[in-house]
Amino acid sequence: MRIAIQGEIASFHDTAAKQWFGSSITPVACDTFSEVFGALNRHEADAAVVAIENLLYGGINQVYDLIEAHGYPIVGEVHLPVHQQLIGTPDSTVTHIFSHPVALAQCENFLDTYYPSARRVEHQDTAGAVRHVAEQNNPHFAAIASREAAEHYGLSVVHKDTEDNPANFTRFLIIQPNGTPPSNANRTSLVLTTDHTPGALAKILTILADNNINLSKLQSRPIVGKPWHYRFYLVLDTANEPLARILPKLRMSATDITILGKYKHNPVGNHDTNRG
Amino acid sequence: MRIAIQGEIASFHDTAAKQWFGSSITPVACDTFSEVFGALNRHEADAAVVAIENLLYGGINQVYDLIEAHGYPIVGEVHLPVHQQLIGTPDSTVTHIFSHPVALAQCENFLDTYYPSARRVEHQDTAGAVRHVAEQNNPHFAAIASREAAEHYGLSVVHKDTEDNPANFTRFLIIQPNGTPPSNANRTSLVLTTDHTPGALAKILTILADNNINLSKLQSRPIVGKPWHYRFYLVLDTANEPLARILPKLRMSATDITILGKYKHNPVGNHDTNRG
Repeated sequence: MRIAIQGEIASFHDTAAKQWFGSSITPVACDTFSEVFGALNRHEADAAVVAIENLLYGGINQVYDLIEAHGYPIVGEVHLPVHQQLIGTPDSTVTHIFSHPVALAQCENFLDTYYPSARRVEHQDTAGAVRHVAEQNNPHFAAIASREAAEHYGLSVVHKDTEDNPANFTRFLIIQPNGTPPSNANRTSLVLTTDHTPGALAKILTILADNNINLSKLQSRPIVGKPWHYRFYLVLDTANEPLARILPKLRMSATDITILGKYKHNPVGNHDTNRG
Repeated sequence: MRIAIQGEIASFHDTAAKQWFGSSITPVACDTFSEVFGALNRHEADAAVVAIENLLYGGINQVYDLIEAHGYPIVGEVHLPVHQQLIGTPDSTVTHIFSHPVALAQCENFLDTYYPSARRVEHQDTAGAVRHVAEQNNPHFAAIASREAAEHYGLSVVHKDTEDNPANFTRFLIIQPNGTPPSNANRTSLVLTTDHTPGALAKILTILADNNINLSKLQSRPIVGKPWHYRFYLVLDTANEPLARILPKLRMSATDITILGKYKHNPVGNHDTNRG
């Protein structure tokens, strides 16, 4: 299968794609999230893997927008524990550290403690930073990236697990144009619009609570040019029948509801491959 | 006044800082958000300006964490309309475009249409990308940044307002260690923890609705290692007396509530300097 990813081979997107689809996939490397969806549009990829949130930066609105605009269903999710490594040559005397800005931010305390005077240089993605260090072959250069990236480019892990928060994770969604929800789906992502907040949202959350449906993610976004009107991105811990039963009630408090996908929740660190 | 900002002179943080404090400030340029708070800790800056959300990427969890961890109050906000410019030399034949990844993403459709074959190169911040182009003095190089950055480095605006969404904005918060809320404060940022969702949050939103208090921002974040426990970041369109009246009721449904600051809301494009 051809899987569109943002970033290159051995990036965290690549790791997430292989965790979901297996190691025999053909990754279609794209520089940006828009290009990922462009690859699906042009049938250059059969599915896509896109980061939707991480511990440090929260949700990525652009990805929600792209999913909604293209109408391709979410059919799965991957919670990837993100462990960063300082990668270089053995006995490196590091003066320059290359990585993606998010990865540098995830290791900020580590870098302040162990490499206070090293210059931090931002790079397009983590795997690309390792490639750069490998190409330059300079013992003063190092990169922050995954173990997979170190192995891919034949460099050493100088310091392991350099992320400040050991619970560091990124959540990825699996987007598949002709996909159908798995039979064991237990999560639903949806976007809804209310014309009055907080009253309307309070009603919606009360319906969920009364029906014992857990909310695992809630994010508001203003609708530009429409004060007091809001869009909410919700992830519910239910799918199929329980949701179908309450949907008519939800529609009474929301002006618009779009289901973005139904899928099986995979908790952090769960490498279970039983995906229905 | 010495104002800590993330990024360098003529960055959007610098523009936001000057919009709030006036053009006579001394910017204290910091590479990262952590360094901004470090500058406050070491009394190297009197206040700070930090981006908290933008249209494309949503909220920046790290900044919320840093505000909460340091306990310095939010005393104001700046909504900055963000207009990007393609900056270079007159009659440029552009092959390389340098900018911060967020700025490149904000101009993606523009770049695909007008510069489909130009290479996009990520840089630490937008103003730094302009400085780089000015230093290289190569007619094939251009940067995406603000008009202020073009003026600061003496380069031309080759294309104006290149952002895909004309409503593009970034919201910045003003952090001032010894600051007090302005007398005309009408917004409150707070973080609360619930031990059961959605029931607890529904109750909180119902209290707000019953008291006619508008919610202008709501963002959930899981508490790692504590399933079903959530932290919510809320921005309420009220401050002082109305909030004080309902706070005891809110505390009955939340396990913990921390007020991060009270300040005057400045809508997009409002350059009013009456800040109480």
